[in-house]
Parts: sequence; C-alpha cells; structure tokens
Amino acid sequence: MYPQSAPDGPSVRGRDIRVDVAVIGGGVIGHGIAWEALQSGRSVALIDDAPGTGASWAAAGMLAPVSELHYQEEELLELMLHSSGLWPAFAAGLDSRGPAAGGTGTGYLTTSTLAVGADAADRRALADLRGVQQASGLTVEPLTVREARTREPLLSPGISCAFNIPADHQVDPRKLLVRIAESLPGSAVREPAAGLLWEEGRVSGVRLSGGNAVRAGETIVANGLGSAALDGLPARLKLPLRPVYGDILRLRVPGYLQPLLTSTVRGMVHGVPVYIVPRQDGTVVIGATQREDSLSGTGTADRGAGNAAPAHSGVSAGGVYQLLRDAQVLVPAVAELELLEATARARPGTPDNAPLLGRVAAADTGRDIAGLIIATGFFRHGVLLTPAAASICRQLMDGNADPRWAPFRPDRFSRRPATTADFVTIDPNKETA
Amino acid sequence: MYPQSAPDGPSVRGRDIRVDVAVIGGGVIGHGIAWEALQSGRSVALIDDAPGTGASWAAAGMLAPVSELHYQEEELLELMLHSSGLWPAFAAGLDSRGPAAGGTGTGYLTTSTLAVGADAADRRALADLRGVQQASGLTVEPLTVREARTREPLLSPGISCAFNIPADHQVDPRKLLVRIAESLPGSAVREPAAGLLWEEGRVSGVRLSGGNAVRAGETIVANGLGSAALDGLPARLKLPLRPVYGDILRLRVPGYLQPLLTSTVRGMVHGVPVYIVPRQDGTVVIGATQREDSLSGTGTADRGAGNAAPAHSGVSAGGVYQLLRDAQVLVPAVAELELLEATARARPGTPDNAPLLGRVAAADTGRDIAGLIIATGFFRHGVLLTPAAASICRQLMDGNADPRWAPFRPDRFSRRPATTADFVTIDPNKETA
Repeated sequence: MYPQSAPDGPSVRGRDIRVDVAVIGGGVIGHGIAWEALQSGRSVALIDDAPGTGASWAAAGMLAPVSELHYQEEELLELMLHSSGLWPAFAAGLDSRGPAAGGTGTGYLTTSTLAVGADAADRRALADLRGVQQASGLTVEPLTVREARTREPLLSPGISCAFNIPADHQVDPRKLLVRIAESLPGSAVREPAAGLLWEEGRVSGVRLSGGNAVRAGETIVANGLGSAALDGLPARLKLPLRPVYGDILRLRVPGYLQPLLTSTVRGMVHGVPVYIVPRQDGTVVIGATQREDSLSGTGTADRGAGNAAPAHSGVSAGGVYQLLRDAQVLVPAVAELELLEATARARPGTPDNAPLLGRVAAADTGRDIAGLIIATGFFRHGVLLTPAAASICRQLMDGNADPRWAPFRPDRFSRRPATTADFVTIDPNKETA
Repeated sequence: MYPQSAPDGPSVRGRDIRVDVAVIGGGVIGHGIAWEALQSGRSVALIDDAPGTGASWAAAGMLAPVSELHYQEEELLELMLHSSGLWPAFAAGLDSRGPAAGGTGTGYLTTSTLAVGADAADRRALADLRGVQQASGLTVEPLTVREARTREPLLSPGISCAFNIPADHQVDPRKLLVRIAESLPGSAVREPAAGLLWEEGRVSGVRLSGGNAVRAGETIVANGLGSAALDGLPARLKLPLRPVYGDILRLRVPGYLQPLLTSTVRGMVHGVPVYIVPRQDGTVVIGATQREDSLSGTGTADRGAGNAAPAHSGVSAGGVYQLLRDAQVLVPAVAELELLEATARARPGTPDNAPLLGRVAAADTGRDIAGLIIATGFFRHGVLLTPAAASICRQLMDGNADPRWAPFRPDRFSRRPATTADFVTIDPNKETA
C-alpha cells in the first residue's frame, strides 16, 4: 500500500518552505518527475494531499507502445517508443535502491504481450492493425491458435487469432508508486495545492490550500484532471482535459489455476477490447472499459490527486459485467477466480489523446514562462510515459528543449492570432507581465 | 453500520458474570433470541467477538415463505409461514423503540414479490411450482407480462411469465441487526465463546476464549456454522452443518432510474434463480448464487460470527458475472447501476435444509438437557425465521415445547439405538451425567 503517513515530509503548516522543484500531483507522472529531479541533485517537494489514489492506483500498468498504436497518432507513437526505451534503466534505477534491490520492486517485467481475437471480424481488425504497426516498423508476429495455446494453455480453443508482441511489457503501478515514494524521503507535502505563485513574470512556486507557500525555482503541474482547476495558470492557457472513466478488476487466481497466464493478453472480443494482465503475486488485472459518463453519486467525498477533480467514480455494473464476459471468452477459467476488487477512476483525456507536456508561452511576449512546466493529460498512457515525462522535464529544467516533443506543448490548444486584446486583459492576479 | 464498540456491554475481562440467558452468536438469529429474552424480563449476554459480520450481513432479507417453498418440505413451510405471521409484530416491537420509531427502523416492507421467468422452460417451471404452492394453500397470482410491466416498467418486455406473490415481503438485515443491537444495551460480550460449561448434568453457561465465564440459567447456541466447533457440546450430539456459499451484490440506482423496482423480483433465468431486492435507500441487492466450494485464499483473517468457522469466502468472479448477466435479462437497466459492493458469505446448511432448533436429549437418560437450546442451521432462511426462532426459544425457556416444532430438534441426526457403550463413554469434561 502507498505509505499513508509522511512523517519525514517538509511540514509546511505555519511556515513557507523553499525547494528547487515543486511537483503538484502525486500520481505516477508526478512521482516520476520528482524522482528524476532528485536524481539530478535538486531538492524536491511532491505536493498532494492524497498521493497515489487517482488514476495511477487503478492503472493496469501495460507498457504497450505497439498495442496502443492508433491510426494517425505517429507523434505519440514516437514518444511512447522513446519512453518504452527508457523503462529498463528507469526501473533498474529504482530497483537498485531500497529494501527490494534485486529486481521486483516495481513489478517491471519484459515478458511479451499476446494480442488475441475472438471472432473472424476481430481477426480482420487485428490483422489490419498489424499492417499499420508493421508500417511503423513495429514487430507483431502471427501465431497459430495452437502455438498461442502452447504458450498459454488456458486460452480458449475458440479464439480466432493470436499475435506475439515482444516489445509490449508491464509494470505494477501500485508497486511503482510505493517504490518511488520510499525513494523520496522528506519530499512529501500532504496538503492540496491551491494555485501557482508568480513573481516578476515567472512562476515562483505553489500556494497551498492552507495559505502557506512552497517556493521553487521550477514548478511542475502534474495533477492530472485537477491541473486545469489550479489558480494562477497563465493567462489564456487552455488545458482541455476531460475525464475518461474506466472500470478495472483485480482477481486472485486459485492455486490450482496458477499461473493463469504468463503473458499479458490483450483481446478484441466482438469488436470490444479487454486485457488480462497477470501479476507476479498470483493476481490478475482485467480492464479496458472506457466511458465518459461518471457514476459519482455514492455520496463519498473521494477526491482526485491533490484536487477536487472528478478522478473517482462509481464502478459500473455494466462495465464489470462486460469485462467478466469478454475475459471469459478468451480465458474461460476467469469464472473460477476470486474477485478481490472493482475500482473505477478517471483518466485525463485530451482532444488529440496526447499529453500536455512542456513549457508554456506567455500570452503577451510569446516567450516561454520561466519556472513552469506542465505535465498532464496522459490519458491511457501515464504509466508507459512516466520515464519520458521525467526525462523531458529534467531536460527542460536543464535548459534543453528537444524539438521532437514540441507537438506536445501544453499551449497547443491555446494558440490563436494575436489581437490587441492580448495586451490589455492581463490579470495582475494571474500573471504579472 | 453495526455498532463497532460496545462501551456498555458487561466487561468480562478478569471476572465472571451471571445472566439469565447467554446467547452465543451475533447474527440475526442470536440477536432475535436475545431481544425476545430481554422482552420476557430476562437478563441477557450476547456473546460474539464480531457480531453482525457473518451470513446475516450479506443476506438479502427476503421474507418469502411462498417463493422459498421446495418440494417435500412441508414441515419447513409450516415454520416459515408461522414466522412470516410473527414478522409484523416483531418489526413493530422493534420499530416502536429507539430513535427510528415510526416504521423504517428495520426496513420491514410488506410489498408483494413478483416471480418472473425468462424463457418458456422457466415459465413451465414456475407454473409447476405454483401448482405445489396452491396445493399448500398459498396464493400465487398469474399476471400477464403487460400487467407485470405496468407495475414494474423496467422489467424486460422479453420475460416469459410473471406471478404476484402477496405474502412474500422483505426486511433489511443490516438495519435489523443495528436496530436490535441498539435495543440491547449492556448485553454485548465481545469475546469469542470457547465452549459450554456444565454443572450437575446441565449446561450452566459459556466459557469465553479468555478463560472467564458467563454463567447462565439458559444457554442458546446460535453461532451458525461455528456451533459444531464449540467445546462441551452434549456427548454424541451431531450438528451436521456445512457451509453453502453465496455471492451477493449491492448496487446504487442512479436518480434517473429510480425506483428501479417497487417489488422484489425473483427470477428464473434459463433455469437459474436470481433475485433483485429494491431497498428504500435507493439501492438494490442482487443475489442467488449458491456454491459449496470456498474461495477463501485471500490471506485475510476474516472470521465467522463468534468462531473460526469458514463463514467468509472470497467473491466468485463467475458468480458475480452470472448475477449481473441474469439480472440484466430480467431488468436490462441493471447495466446502468453502480456496483457498490460484492460480498460472499457461507450459510449454515443442514442435510434436510431445515434448522437445528430446540433442546437436546442427553445420550444417557434420553431426557432433555437442562439449560441448553440449540438454534442454528437456518441456511437460506435465517432472516425469515428469526421471529419464530426467538418465540420458540422463549417458549422453551418458559417450559413449553410446541410439538409442531419437534421435527426440527437438533438431535434428529444423532439418534441411534442405545447400546451399552452409551453408558460407559461419558466424558466428565464434556458432560457430567
């Protein structure tokens, strides 16, 4: 479980603190950036009143640049492949520290992924997608059903097709969060961020909800759906985030069925995706539902990471039904598992399904605002993209902006022709020009 | 929620206590008996280290003597009808006391039940069962599908048949437990019962796991599956209890679908039973799975009511799937509900599906053992039979044994021809002859 107390964090009740880097948001992205900043010799504050409880807590942890490729998302593919390439060193760096040194601290596994289809239409859809994947230089190897079932005997004999995807791996996001949290002694600020502080045209830190300040040379906005609700965002910056809900199940495999699977299975069942991710602890994760409607009427006061955004939602009965139904089509023995947990969370979606990552140009000068980096909108890809987000933030803090990642600039939805209005509506409470 | 602290209970750490009636087991049966004993002017100790957490916590609360009638269970039917007749006064007695006086304290509702079938075979099965029910003098009124959907517009138009059962009602078992617990001030002993105490051939109370004693004129063994594991049961008494597991779901109905149903719907879907019980708080309960295999490998130390019996189990993924699938066949809008909870518990089953209720004959004398009443094995019927169990126990304590309930004597599975061995194997630790 994520450490629930932070006795060694910098207490800010009643006083301000000063660090090199203030990270708003305690999901995987915020954790990864904080860790990378610490590695670079910077002091860090990770600000979240409920770290590790948002979308990251529900994530399955597939590191799947190949399976996640969608038509016409080539720039995102480049970022995903880049991050996938960073994963081994990122995991090794974490696993080499702390009590679990030896390799399993983050649950990072490089076993390949199987893509399987249920019916003939699913076979055609996966074969078509393979064409796109191959055109992008990715390796997707067709298997016969017999070959797939030799590798995974509990796959249904009724599946229509199978493909081996060597480059798609997995990590355990809960272990990852805990591992990073353990590696960030003294960095946790368990209080909600209220807004950005500004000083002489640059961001100078974070105002906490209790009124105190975390002053910082660089402030990273990484609190997912809550990012857009922060006070003091740059004038006219639009962060077009929307919650995309997902239900996810965790199940225990009884001893006589272990291992249920050795590879992650990503299925297409009558046109609907479902994935089954085996964990080393004898559990499996089943997910894939996506819905844009919330089921948030439970009366609980659950809150997203460090903000009041609707990151939590009720669990959809129809979603749970569909996951269990479709998972059983691929692996009938799923019926014999024990249901441990059904969880729903919202992922921060964006109009182009790509993250909002980088610095932001000031509305008046057009120059990047100093002291501020945005890292949100990672949608389905937060866990995969964590090392890339961390690395890119570090480069930006070092003064290096890689032009490959310019398409993900957070202000890409805010650009419009400049008008005179741009020069008269500056709100001094929001931004001091 | 069931009150988790019992500051006003008789503390027994370090000393013995003495009451008129010691009840072992804090499920609905134990609570009902304790309440009835208190009404009769007796002092009571209700002994359970985790009251209200066993099968009662999961129960749907259907009070359904008609729907629960099975072939060749006429004696059980008589008991169920007797208890159903006691329910209005029992609920009124509870509702007239305490803060919720006015009627909703136990969630007791006399709305009728609808029995519906999914396909033609289900229609034939329900029609056949109606013949048996009518032969027993019970009222089961056929409805057209149109009439059923006029009453319950969210019923699927595809159902094959519907019957109105006016005599089948409901209560909320969790509310019932809480209501009785509130009405038993000073009675809770939050410590496991270890065994029965004997004195001069009669049961004289309960030995607690900590070593202290609850001395009592009458001791009631009502701890479900744990009953058979008590030390000091009468020699050669067999309590043939077995766990019968069930999965149950609780779901929230979103505002736009309220009320999902106004009646309890008991369905037969392709030969498999499922029920949907609407609660006054806008939730529904869906259940009906029955399995005799446990899924208890979660590593949790969950325990049954007042004992180490396997009253808890993991939730079956296949069971949850089946409940959601079949409930949607009858009420398609179930897919739009929010899944709040999936719970599994074991019910104490017996070879003849009838309770073990009454006094026990001594193996040597053949006369009833004084000071001891058994009340366990209520299987699917614990909530319905609570007033009857309470009333019958009170009559027994008053010295009245109603011959109608002799078929439920707890020693009915222990009878065999007496042999000389009966007179030489008396264990003085178990029973002083």
